[in-house]
Amino acid sequence: MEFNLWAQSIQARTESALEQLLPPSHIAPERLHQAMRYSILGGGKRVRALLAHAAGEFCGANAAHLDVAACAVEMIHAYSLVHDDMPCMDDDDLRRGKPSCHKQFDDATALLVGDALQTLAFELLSAADFGVSVQQKLTMTNLLAKCSGSRGMAGGQAIDLASVGLDLSQEQLEFMHIHKTGALIRAATLLGAYCADNQDKKKNAALDHYAKHMGLAFQVVDDILDTQADTATLGKTAGKDALDNKPTYVTILGLKRARELAKELHHNALSQLGDDAPRLTQLANYITERSY
Amino acid sequence: MEFNLWAQSIQARTESALEQLLPPSHIAPERLHQAMRYSILGGGKRVRALLAHAAGEFCGANAAHLDVAACAVEMIHAYSLVHDDMPCMDDDDLRRGKPSCHKQFDDATALLVGDALQTLAFELLSAADFGVSVQQKLTMTNLLAKCSGSRGMAGGQAIDLASVGLDLSQEQLEFMHIHKTGALIRAATLLGAYCADNQDKKKNAALDHYAKHMGLAFQVVDDILDTQADTATLGKTAGKDALDNKPTYVTILGLKRARELAKELHHNALSQLGDDAPRLTQLANYITERSY
Repeated sequence: MEFNLWAQSIQARTESALEQLLPPSHIAPERLHQAMRYSILGGGKRVRALLAHAAGEFCGANAAHLDVAACAVEMIHAYSLVHDDMPCMDDDDLRRGKPSCHKQFDDATALLVGDALQTLAFELLSAADFGVSVQQKLTMTNLLAKCSGSRGMAGGQAIDLASVGLDLSQEQLEFMHIHKTGALIRAATLLGAYCADNQDKKKNAALDHYAKHMGLAFQVVDDILDTQADTATLGKTAGKDALDNKPTYVTILGLKRARELAKELHHNALSQLGDDAPRLTQLANYITERSY
Repeated sequence: MEFNLWAQSIQARTESALEQLLPPSHIAPERLHQAMRYSILGGGKRVRALLAHAAGEFCGANAAHLDVAACAVEMIHAYSLVHDDMPCMDDDDLRRGKPSCHKQFDDATALLVGDALQTLAFELLSAADFGVSVQQKLTMTNLLAKCSGSRGMAGGQAIDLASVGLDLSQEQLEFMHIHKTGALIRAATLLGAYCADNQDKKKNAALDHYAKHMGLAFQVVDDILDTQADTATLGKTAGKDALDNKPTYVTILGLKRARELAKELHHNALSQLGDDAPRLTQLANYITERSY
């Protein structure tokens, strides 16, 4: 299957799985459930779901199991966006081309939406009806927790907050992004691998290498797009980093060197995978060549 | 051992276990880790830890395993308090006799502290070095997630928000509290039971009955104390519910009937336990007779 068609099919099945796994909006508390659904359904590139499926296919995992893993990571990602957009954090009114959760609802609801989406991710991975083994579920739950917490994604947000207005070195910027974006990209990829019945250490190590480099590549491209694309294309406020006085790969390295770095990371990501991973290669191309 | 001494010993070992399980404050991001430790260490009645230990002792569980379960529930509780105190929610400056997290640090840090404490609870219960069986860990992780999410504690917060200024019936108030406070009280008790090597369905059912009634009793007493005790005794702002125009058991039933209800719930909580549960009986007395 051509990559675009494959990506569309993963995006569609992720949307449909999320639809089913989220609490229906007619169940109390209705407004909270409506806001949870608003914040995660109907949009997003679903890069983390694509990574989980591509890695899972590479390892021979069952697609229905991959849906659960993909939804759990997308829920953690969506929760972080909802909280990140709040006035006390980045104060962004636009997300995925729509008013962000706190604008559409209110701050208190956005706070609870983020809280409850996070909880739901862990509820899904530990659920009795998730079809992988008990040990797999536990490994996946623990990995996702480690990658999202204070030594992972949430820690990266804290470092991001603390870095506003500072002159970071490239190393310090990298340290921030390894936590803020990288940890969850890594979790998405490895959760995909962990869905497979048999674990192949060599494949998992190559996937981990892939994910670490793609996590940084993703962020470098994000920083480039923030300076190059317009708000309508991005679906979020363009030029926000400069406005917020945040250090980025473009401010530290300049546009030309940032573009070269993205290419180097892309090349390095694929270096341990060999020729039998076409989907992961295409996905790496997509992530570095995307326009939003 | 006398109840007070037992409670003090559980509070002390919970404090010490939390000390060890929280990330040290010298590890990056330092400020986030300091704020996480500030928000959960050195205070609180640790009612949920007491419940986990009392239920666990009743079922013959290992005390070191109970420490992990107790810490996980206390982390969820602490995260909910940190978020609940934020300006967009209850906007309370005082917690456990100290400035609340967003006052001591800032709103963005408080947001991330709550997020990361929640994650850490799930990381602990799914950790490889938690000494119970893989199946027990998974059951406990899933129970805690169900009880904390949008159909549990976070859902209760949403109902609480929506009820400000409304005339609730006693039934509607009960529905709110079953979610907001009751779900986590129930999780604490059952997590204690699930730490035992052998599961006794009859004991677990009696504990579930106990926890459901004690959850409501706890809230009725909270509402009474909010109108009767002063801020210094409570360690949080007294009279806050009336100030916020929130329905409580006292506003709906009056003080006299609220006190009777607490006694009835206490009596009912113990009705399935028999005479071999002295610690749970003493704990029920403590919860309904406490002065803060």
